[in-house]
Amino acid sequence: MNLTVTEKIIKNHLVNGNLSRGNEIGIKIDQTLTQDSTGTMAYLQLEAIGIDKVKTKKSVAYIDHNMLQSGPENADDHLYIQTIAKKYGIYFSKPGNGICHQVHLERVAVPGQTLLGSDSHTPTAGGIGMLAIGAGGLDVAVAMAGGEYYITMPKIVKVELKGKLKFGVSAKDIILEVLRICTVKGGVNKIFEYCGDGLKNLTVPERATITNMGAELGATTSIFPSDELTYEFLKAQGREKDFIEIKADENASYDEEITIYLDNLEPLVACPNSPDNVVPVTEVKNIKVNQVAIGSCTNSSYMDLMKVSKILEGKTIAEHVSLVISPGSKQVLNMLAENGALAKLVASGARILESACGPCIGMGQAPNTNGVSLRTFNRNFKGRCGTALADVYLVSPEIAAISAINGYICDPRDYIDEFNIEMPDKFLVNDNLIMLPSEKGKEVKIVRGPNIKPFPQTKPLNNKIKGHALIKVDDNITTDHIMPSHAKLLPFRSNIPYLSNYCLTPCDEKFPERAKKLGGGIIIGGVNYGQGSSREHAALVPLYLGIKAVIAKSFARIHKQNLINNGILPLRFKNADDYEDIDLMDELLINDILDKLNQNILTIKNTTKNKEYELILDASERQKKMLIAGGLLNLIKKSLF
Amino acid sequence: MNLTVTEKIIKNHLVNGNLSRGNEIGIKIDQTLTQDSTGTMAYLQLEAIGIDKVKTKKSVAYIDHNMLQSGPENADDHLYIQTIAKKYGIYFSKPGNGICHQVHLERVAVPGQTLLGSDSHTPTAGGIGMLAIGAGGLDVAVAMAGGEYYITMPKIVKVELKGKLKFGVSAKDIILEVLRICTVKGGVNKIFEYCGDGLKNLTVPERATITNMGAELGATTSIFPSDELTYEFLKAQGREKDFIEIKADENASYDEEITIYLDNLEPLVACPNSPDNVVPVTEVKNIKVNQVAIGSCTNSSYMDLMKVSKILEGKTIAEHVSLVISPGSKQVLNMLAENGALAKLVASGARILESACGPCIGMGQAPNTNGVSLRTFNRNFKGRCGTALADVYLVSPEIAAISAINGYICDPRDYIDEFNIEMPDKFLVNDNLIMLPSEKGKEVKIVRGPNIKPFPQTKPLNNKIKGHALIKVDDNITTDHIMPSHAKLLPFRSNIPYLSNYCLTPCDEKFPERAKKLGGGIIIGGVNYGQGSSREHAALVPLYLGIKAVIAKSFARIHKQNLINNGILPLRFKNADDYEDIDLMDELLINDILDKLNQNILTIKNTTKNKEYELILDASERQKKMLIAGGLLNLIKKSLF
Repeated sequence: MNLTVTEKIIKNHLVNGNLSRGNEIGIKIDQTLTQDSTGTMAYLQLEAIGIDKVKTKKSVAYIDHNMLQSGPENADDHLYIQTIAKKYGIYFSKPGNGICHQVHLERVAVPGQTLLGSDSHTPTAGGIGMLAIGAGGLDVAVAMAGGEYYITMPKIVKVELKGKLKFGVSAKDIILEVLRICTVKGGVNKIFEYCGDGLKNLTVPERATITNMGAELGATTSIFPSDELTYEFLKAQGREKDFIEIKADENASYDEEITIYLDNLEPLVACPNSPDNVVPVTEVKNIKVNQVAIGSCTNSSYMDLMKVSKILEGKTIAEHVSLVISPGSKQVLNMLAENGALAKLVASGARILESACGPCIGMGQAPNTNGVSLRTFNRNFKGRCGTALADVYLVSPEIAAISAINGYICDPRDYIDEFNIEMPDKFLVNDNLIMLPSEKGKEVKIVRGPNIKPFPQTKPLNNKIKGHALIKVDDNITTDHIMPSHAKLLPFRSNIPYLSNYCLTPCDEKFPERAKKLGGGIIIGGVNYGQGSSREHAALVPLYLGIKAVIAKSFARIHKQNLINNGILPLRFKNADDYEDIDLMDELLINDILDKLNQNILTIKNTTKNKEYELILDASERQKKMLIAGGLLNLIKKSLF
Repeated sequence: MNLTVTEKIIKNHLVNGNLSRGNEIGIKIDQTLTQDSTGTMAYLQLEAIGIDKVKTKKSVAYIDHNMLQSGPENADDHLYIQTIAKKYGIYFSKPGNGICHQVHLERVAVPGQTLLGSDSHTPTAGGIGMLAIGAGGLDVAVAMAGGEYYITMPKIVKVELKGKLKFGVSAKDIILEVLRICTVKGGVNKIFEYCGDGLKNLTVPERATITNMGAELGATTSIFPSDELTYEFLKAQGREKDFIEIKADENASYDEEITIYLDNLEPLVACPNSPDNVVPVTEVKNIKVNQVAIGSCTNSSYMDLMKVSKILEGKTIAEHVSLVISPGSKQVLNMLAENGALAKLVASGARILESACGPCIGMGQAPNTNGVSLRTFNRNFKGRCGTALADVYLVSPEIAAISAINGYICDPRDYIDEFNIEMPDKFLVNDNLIMLPSEKGKEVKIVRGPNIKPFPQTKPLNNKIKGHALIKVDDNITTDHIMPSHAKLLPFRSNIPYLSNYCLTPCDEKFPERAKKLGGGIIIGGVNYGQGSSREHAALVPLYLGIKAVIAKSFARIHKQNLINNGILPLRFKNADDYEDIDLMDELLINDILDKLNQNILTIKNTTKNKEYELILDASERQKKMLIAGGLLNLIKKSLF
């Protein structure tokens, strides 16, 4: 059988299921990564699982999100993660070492292996031929404990790159073109696999720009083959031993195909407020720019910043522009500081930020009100930058740099004479900010700051649930409604009790108070309940508040899984009109749950109204087991010990 | 008459009064500086004064405080200040150009001239032989409008430095020694003037470390003569034309004298929680350190960071230490990036922050709970770092660097072989982040973000004040009680209406609501009302809330002036026991105010209790004029036009 790169790696890691599209498969995970905003929770969950040492080939805990440190919570979380890592056999990348995806690509990722990361841009490592998937913290904790990871076997999209990019056009424009074609909804349950003669001119960091921003397609992941250029990159990193070649078989079959002719590609811009709102730069030329931000896990590599330095050399940024640059890693920053490129950036007027996610996640550098911000990042959702009324455009480093000089959006081809940046034969390798785990893990004491609160534990499913309809919400409630996230709440991701005070408050300010007073109850939702971001806090926080079930007209896929992972019943009205019948604070009763679970249908009694409704539980056998056990954590504990 | 350096400069600038100690003098101001946290208000006040162009020799607006930019307020303030500067003939130092005091020393400060700055560390420029004083924003606005600055003619303290510092001991240790001797209260109404043969081994940036941290003495300012080393520094900055020699006359007479023998000085440490809690480093050796922070306006010069780079070269910081470095200016950062020193800092594991105040003002890098932070800064007040439960020690760059490597407080003499850092013959001069004012100021449009609210205007004093006792507070209420300031409120310094929601809330959460509901009233205070920080927001915010008078047992000096500046009557109980008689919400009435102002005594009627009390107004004739006019701003407007 002729296999794709994806199929080869999945086949090598398959624990459950088969390669038929649409079936549930369980795959073995070789490596994991976490960052600090999702990491604290993942490690609290790892502690709850109760193993001595991680069972992966390599697990790395990065600090890159909460690095502004406006209060003690962040340094406390960093210290917690550092001691956890030391104890449980995890490598710890200290603050200052760089953005997880960039550092992982440079120093850790291995072609042909699998990586599960608690960050949606984990697919970056696909640029080196690794099957790299983003997931919730609990899934990553389970993988660290040796459990397999379950997904629906995705469709595989062949993206053939033909020819060669012209000067002024870059890898960023390739992924913007894919986004223009497929849209942000076009990748659901798909893996984008790149191939074609165009690959021979795309270095690993350029490929990683493409796989990184492939997350914006909603794809499971994106992947490149591991070839000669992969070998060269690994060799330059002193890691040639990690190389294996993986290419798709000739005549491998794909589910869909896209062809991109690189020679024809123009510099592109994703306009506000979606990464797929893509137009040629020629259509938005001359828009005045207030801020230019270069960096993030998409475009902060050595090659990216060398290009920027070359363009800015001897120039000064425009009077009305603030230019901020976040180098992707200590390796990148150190090389630029050594070879003089950083001095040129500083001389031009650039503000050098830490090697961290920074402005991309709204952690600082919010633009002015009604300002225009040009960013080499991957997301331009409204308000994500910290300023609700700003317009964010996503562009290549070339467009960003030349626009910073001129003060308005420019086409680099109009201004820059052709130049070439060589991929270094040898990167500066110095892993002194990566701390090795202890060989005597049992002796390591975990340091837990006052903001780090225990993870709420679940109990096995009861045969009976009784409670009030604590809140009744409309259609299309997002996880941002259920668990708001912004610069002021992000530092509290390890404090579920604190976050619980904000649960569903955009819908009803009194909800958390009511839930606490009554010791929990039931949420009534409309259509598509729990859409949007995958954050598992949207299930953990209701769990903490004593929510036993969510009854809705329908559920978003990931949130439903998160509810099940945490032992909360996601129940669908058999008759959607019954939604109208339930009022706030009605007393509800579900009997015989365990007995009827196999029938997938439960009966709920509204004792206030003296009525009954039928509810459907859409769940696989594995999901039912999770619910009965009281969530994934309890199920895993059972299966591991 | 034989004069000191201080007397020579004051004499040259005297507009009112004479050099007799203790008298009020008015001096002409040559230069002003503002930073962004006080600057927005100062410029709103400048707008209210209503001139076309500043009348100083040079005024510079710096951006260095609110640079994290977690929300749009900061970028909005930066843009407001930038357009104000362009319009009114002020130089604008863009974010990224560096910390106001460091940049001012490098590029702007002139020996023999006067500088008024809306930042308490303005005395830094005393290192170059300038008379540099920190003041409230309104005073700086008045100086920009051409008004003189009034102070009490201070006593002059002669600090004679004899001999030469040994290796491992630095300028920081000199000022720590002065603080140890004089304490944080020892400098009130004094100017510290340095002299002695020890000066010939102290470069201008080293002198500036001393004058900078002289602010911690509570002194009016500190100053060095302008001598051969001053000339060399100015020449290396390409500013030799700005040089004039100013030395104290032989036999000049001083009010107090201190002698410091530099050869005997040891490395010192200011222990928590006060800059005068000073001990030799030998007494605190081996304390485990979690964070080391190098930079701030005290120790972020080229020489400081070159020393740090030399010590860290080829080393790695301890596993449990986070080392953050904020270079003082773009000049410093650029030179380090060019000569390879920055690469060595990065290689050692240092996190390079922006050239800004950063962690010194609690803007980021809060240490972990119960953590120990070693800082080259000037203040270690409890909680200022952002972590209430952290211990902050103030040290020299030498101690900071060697302690970062070892992970505990170290004596540099135990570890470092002697080395020498040469003062450069030529600094890298590139002022491309300093924007020149427009030649057509009238055409410049001010950009005012939604967070920038108009400055509350005052009205001439009424003959009658009627209102409720809106709040009654205890003794020793600080300006931190009246107008709390921390990372969450600092970005709102240009939004008095927003800040007003927090006025006196540490004493009574309902106070702002009550004041707004009743349209203002009267504050009843105890002894030493308004002590602590000089922030004028502690008067502006009550003004906004409609407070007409504060009646207290006694007032702190600066806050009393701020109340008068803003047209609020500061009245003292003639009989302190009357304080007991007034209850919250009593109705109070003061009649015949204008008629009785000259008698310095007013009568207040408590109509609720049907009683009368006598109140004293301690005010100079100038202050009475201010009160009658409705504050300094109105008075100035009258006198200028």
